[in-house]
Amino acid sequence: MPMHLEDLQTPCLVLDRRILERNLARMSERMHRLGVSLRPHLKTAKSAEVARMAVAGESGGITVSTLAEAEYFADHGFRDILVAASQPPQKLDRASALLDRGVDLALITDDTDAARAIAAHRGRFKVLIELDSGDRRAGVRAEGDVLLEIARILGDRFAGVMTHAGHSYGCRDIECVRQVAANERATVVSAAERLSSNGIECGVVSVGSTPTMTHADNLDGVTEARPGVYMFQDLFQAEIGSCSRDDIAVTVLASVIGRNELENRFLLDAGALALSKDRSTQATPHDAGYGEVWDTECKPAYGDCRIERAYQEHGVAVSDSPIDFRRIAVGTKVRVAPNHACITAAAYDRYYVVDGGTEIIAEWDRVNGW
Amino acid sequence: MPMHLEDLQTPCLVLDRRILERNLARMSERMHRLGVSLRPHLKTAKSAEVARMAVAGESGGITVSTLAEAEYFADHGFRDILVAASQPPQKLDRASALLDRGVDLALITDDTDAARAIAAHRGRFKVLIELDSGDRRAGVRAEGDVLLEIARILGDRFAGVMTHAGHSYGCRDIECVRQVAANERATVVSAAERLSSNGIECGVVSVGSTPTMTHADNLDGVTEARPGVYMFQDLFQAEIGSCSRDDIAVTVLASVIGRNELENRFLLDAGALALSKDRSTQATPHDAGYGEVWDTECKPAYGDCRIERAYQEHGVAVSDSPIDFRRIAVGTKVRVAPNHACITAAAYDRYYVVDGGTEIIAEWDRVNGW
Repeated sequence: MPMHLEDLQTPCLVLDRRILERNLARMSERMHRLGVSLRPHLKTAKSAEVARMAVAGESGGITVSTLAEAEYFADHGFRDILVAASQPPQKLDRASALLDRGVDLALITDDTDAARAIAAHRGRFKVLIELDSGDRRAGVRAEGDVLLEIARILGDRFAGVMTHAGHSYGCRDIECVRQVAANERATVVSAAERLSSNGIECGVVSVGSTPTMTHADNLDGVTEARPGVYMFQDLFQAEIGSCSRDDIAVTVLASVIGRNELENRFLLDAGALALSKDRSTQATPHDAGYGEVWDTECKPAYGDCRIERAYQEHGVAVSDSPIDFRRIAVGTKVRVAPNHACITAAAYDRYYVVDGGTEIIAEWDRVNGW
Repeated sequence: MPMHLEDLQTPCLVLDRRILERNLARMSERMHRLGVSLRPHLKTAKSAEVARMAVAGESGGITVSTLAEAEYFADHGFRDILVAASQPPQKLDRASALLDRGVDLALITDDTDAARAIAAHRGRFKVLIELDSGDRRAGVRAEGDVLLEIARILGDRFAGVMTHAGHSYGCRDIECVRQVAANERATVVSAAERLSSNGIECGVVSVGSTPTMTHADNLDGVTEARPGVYMFQDLFQAEIGSCSRDDIAVTVLASVIGRNELENRFLLDAGALALSKDRSTQATPHDAGYGEVWDTECKPAYGDCRIERAYQEHGVAVSDSPIDFRRIAVGTKVRVAPNHACITAAAYDRYYVVDGGTEIIAEWDRVNGW
């Protein structure tokens, strides 16, 4: 195993365990204080090692977004898994193979036809009904008839309600996030009350996004929370107030492969595939292009250096101030902080783990694909 | 092996061999007519099966963008490989292992320090000097002193010059592409002439991008061309005139997982990871969001349906005209045409191959990572 960042082939993914632990502890404490179970979403980390750390002190339940993730975590001993993205009926056989292996698998739905398919399937899934708390991605309305109809179709498979306030990503200040968090809570709690007043009890009342769980001041009536990116954080979360740049645990290690002093730019071997084409920070105060360029100790040592253009395997690093080219040779290694950790990490099959420094203390695998 | 698109788990990558063959033949004929060797760039396809088809009738040489690709293609019998992205000096040992295996491996550089590292390395690489023909990504100037300096440093490892006219992607009409192609040619030919008049002969004079190779009308003085995305094409290439939508060979098969008739949208199980966050068509006449939604026979059967929002595992499909929801049930399969095939394909480890229809005739692997 390589012992130091300097020994690694680039581009590769570096995870700082010290920062990860701090991020995990902060969210865990917060959820305890607000009286809800933390069911961490592993769609960002996709790693059994990270999952084991994330559920320490929690009930052990996790959230995933694909069946490939559910299978991977089942292989690694996790037995309480919520798949928090609707699945097509054609995948129910594959999902029920997890039930057969003893996994307590929960699905979600917002569609009467899908609910009928689940209810008719031999697999005795637990099912949460997805609600739209304002994101307009998926989910039924808390006040509509479809909510009750789906619950009745599901019968004894019905286990509760859930929502994801993805529109918290549209906020640019904490007051906005608090308001979204209040709506997120109100949506599921009112849905649970409507169901209850119709004789249908909600065991699970589930919410979650990293911004809302970071800033919510009241989760009364909620039973569990499902944030995910809080584990790693990223530039976008820093921009919208979920964290500071010091809390970003995952970076892409890259090498300088070219320099152009005259035009004040240099070239990295990390481009669109290594960084992703995510441009989340474009609409925030500090547009980081395709990522901020830090030195190997995560210091912004090259001024406000950022990846302005991302070709498939090339990243063009620029700065508004003069770059100190005495520090930039062909072969110099840098770390690129990602706009959106979930998307960037998906290009890699492993983490090289450091513990606050530049020594490699472990390699942890990841699951990708579907 | 699944026999039909309907049998596949989604999201997955579908490749139409019939279209692929037509795209390959068209470029191959064009390069023959213009009197240059075709050294196809496999960074898009990353597949030995596709590479074997692409070099049929050619010299057999290929282009790649990473050492992982070079190793994969070497494993599959390819012996003449150009790595057309600069590598950091730390990777020369790994690259020279390919020389030891009998691969005729060529590298590129645009940096005097990198050239010194290559010249001092035990691996007897062939090296092309990269020129900037206007893209401002990498490359020295054809008229500058550095060109001659690097050639002298490389000594007998020097093999020629190359450029990539990536700025052809900025064109919005064919006249513009023709002009970029003329500049691309002029850059390498004038560099080769300068070297020659200084007693340094250029064996290789190499150019290439899909737009310029599609529209160049003169490649005199050029020895080889390195287009890549022409094999698969994509919505962006269609928008800038490299192809028509009928020429797009690769699509993402996805399933409907939710519907919202009231808001005229539906939800697919293909989001940012399955489609990429590439937004190349944003700056073209027909902004396709994160991809166009076609039926399983590749007909735009849902009007101008496109993915307007891409979450990690969710794609929100919208249309400016009313969507016919009688054709959209939960579980309905669709094919999403990508903005940028190179980036979208990188999320997958295989192709499900069809031959103009919806029957699966083969599974072909792909190499990813670094």
